[in-house]
Amino acid sequence: MPAPVSGQKKKAEALQALHRAAEPLVLVNAWDVGSARIVEQAGFPAIATSSAGIAFACGFEDGQKIHPDLMMAAIARIAGAVSVPVTADVEAGYGTSPESAARVAANVIESGAVGMNFEDATGDAEHPLADLSLQVERIRAIRESAARLHVALVLNARTDVYLLQVGEAAKRYDETLRRLRAFRDAGADCVFVPGLRDAPTIGRLVQEMNCPVNILAVPDAPSVGELAGLGVQRISLGSGPMRSSLGLLRRLAEEVKSAGTYTNMKGAPSHAEINDLMKLNPRKRQK
Amino acid sequence: MPAPVSGQKKKAEALQALHRAAEPLVLVNAWDVGSARIVEQAGFPAIATSSAGIAFACGFEDGQKIHPDLMMAAIARIAGAVSVPVTADVEAGYGTSPESAARVAANVIESGAVGMNFEDATGDAEHPLADLSLQVERIRAIRESAARLHVALVLNARTDVYLLQVGEAAKRYDETLRRLRAFRDAGADCVFVPGLRDAPTIGRLVQEMNCPVNILAVPDAPSVGELAGLGVQRISLGSGPMRSSLGLLRRLAEEVKSAGTYTNMKGAPSHAEINDLMKLNPRKRQK
Repeated sequence: MPAPVSGQKKKAEALQALHRAAEPLVLVNAWDVGSARIVEQAGFPAIATSSAGIAFACGFEDGQKIHPDLMMAAIARIAGAVSVPVTADVEAGYGTSPESAARVAANVIESGAVGMNFEDATGDAEHPLADLSLQVERIRAIRESAARLHVALVLNARTDVYLLQVGEAAKRYDETLRRLRAFRDAGADCVFVPGLRDAPTIGRLVQEMNCPVNILAVPDAPSVGELAGLGVQRISLGSGPMRSSLGLLRRLAEEVKSAGTYTNMKGAPSHAEINDLMKLNPRKRQK
Repeated sequence: MPAPVSGQKKKAEALQALHRAAEPLVLVNAWDVGSARIVEQAGFPAIATSSAGIAFACGFEDGQKIHPDLMMAAIARIAGAVSVPVTADVEAGYGTSPESAARVAANVIESGAVGMNFEDATGDAEHPLADLSLQVERIRAIRESAARLHVALVLNARTDVYLLQVGEAAKRYDETLRRLRAFRDAGADCVFVPGLRDAPTIGRLVQEMNCPVNILAVPDAPSVGELAGLGVQRISLGSGPMRSSLGLLRRLAEEVKSAGTYTNMKGAPSHAEINDLMKLNPRKRQK
């Protein structure tokens, strides 16, 4: 494995700092280089990948159905094409052991990314969440793997208690808190709880966690300003941007089919403009 | 090279037939599997790839800057994930010799596609268009390559006289006609003239070519109905759909940044819906 360049170490530190800034870190998740370059150009200080977005772009369902090599190749293309730090969503790490988690963390660093989402969903309907002690071991293994590579990998540890609606509704908050505290204590830099949208509960969680908390923003979620007021330190959009782009394509396809017109293409950046945006990409003609 | 399956031969024949139908073939160009599945689901009978769209998604400028293997991999993923015939834009064939053109045609068929765009742009500012006699040889080589593989590859031969504004404006029509007739006589099934938008000129070209003509639809181009009335047999959107999706992403990014809201995500297909759309993809876990 190539040694991480000092630029990558600095990017990791910059991404760490963005989790401790006065304003929350807002991430408009990308799924390919084109989307990443657009988000970077819009002035965002970091790029997060959407694992669902990458899977959908490649033709796979969400939830570790894509081959990990294809996921990592997409992440590497994005990380190689933007100047800002990139944090990679690698789902549940494409394995179950601490060793596999360590390997995925090394792969993430090797890809040029400096952050990593790591979730506790198993894909098993009967046991939807990983055993907490195993997940904690895996987080420790990620931490150690990154330390061996001397990169302060920003680990965003996620629980899917709310997203998968695990157990009785009344017990979800306590289970989320229990899991996220264990993740934090095992070395996570930030904790992520997709599916939680209720403002008072978010505010309570932020207080009780006392570490950066990531909230998934969906169309009816509290605004960036409201989440900032609740103390949320990181806001991401998940696969929403990618699915929104598919929605625009669907509206265009339906317009062309029914009316024979192309008005949904108005407002598109010109060919010359996107060409110029891609000229900055240093990874010419690489596979 | 694997022998083409009979399904591929039938797809080629179906795509040929769509170029001789009562209604023009309308192609909302795709750039990844997600976009291809959306277009297929919208009821279009064939999928065309956009080479610029694929290049932009992978982070390269248009015009053969992407590695051909990366382009072919994207085409193969699309062709493997939809049921309708796929026609691949392979630019100027990533080479200059008849042999390289033959090889690209074989690669296109190997990827599962049954149609191919082949253009005469050179990328050289001083000599922007390939020598006509060489281009004709290359078209013959493509025809022979497809015949050897027993697939009726639908060859869409393109001249960039209008797109690149080559020579004096007053002479472009005659030069276009001269080139496209030579392409047709060498075995092209359809001829493509991007950059031509003027309705009377389109009508005249269709009459004088007496073979299927492809027009690139841009926002201010004649509608599908108007082009059909002029006798146009094939209408494609090029990189417009991909750039439109980037436009939507840019509007979303700017909204999140300035207002802190997410209304540009409204109207996106849900996560569950896109997941369902991908379940039909037969290429599970392949790289």
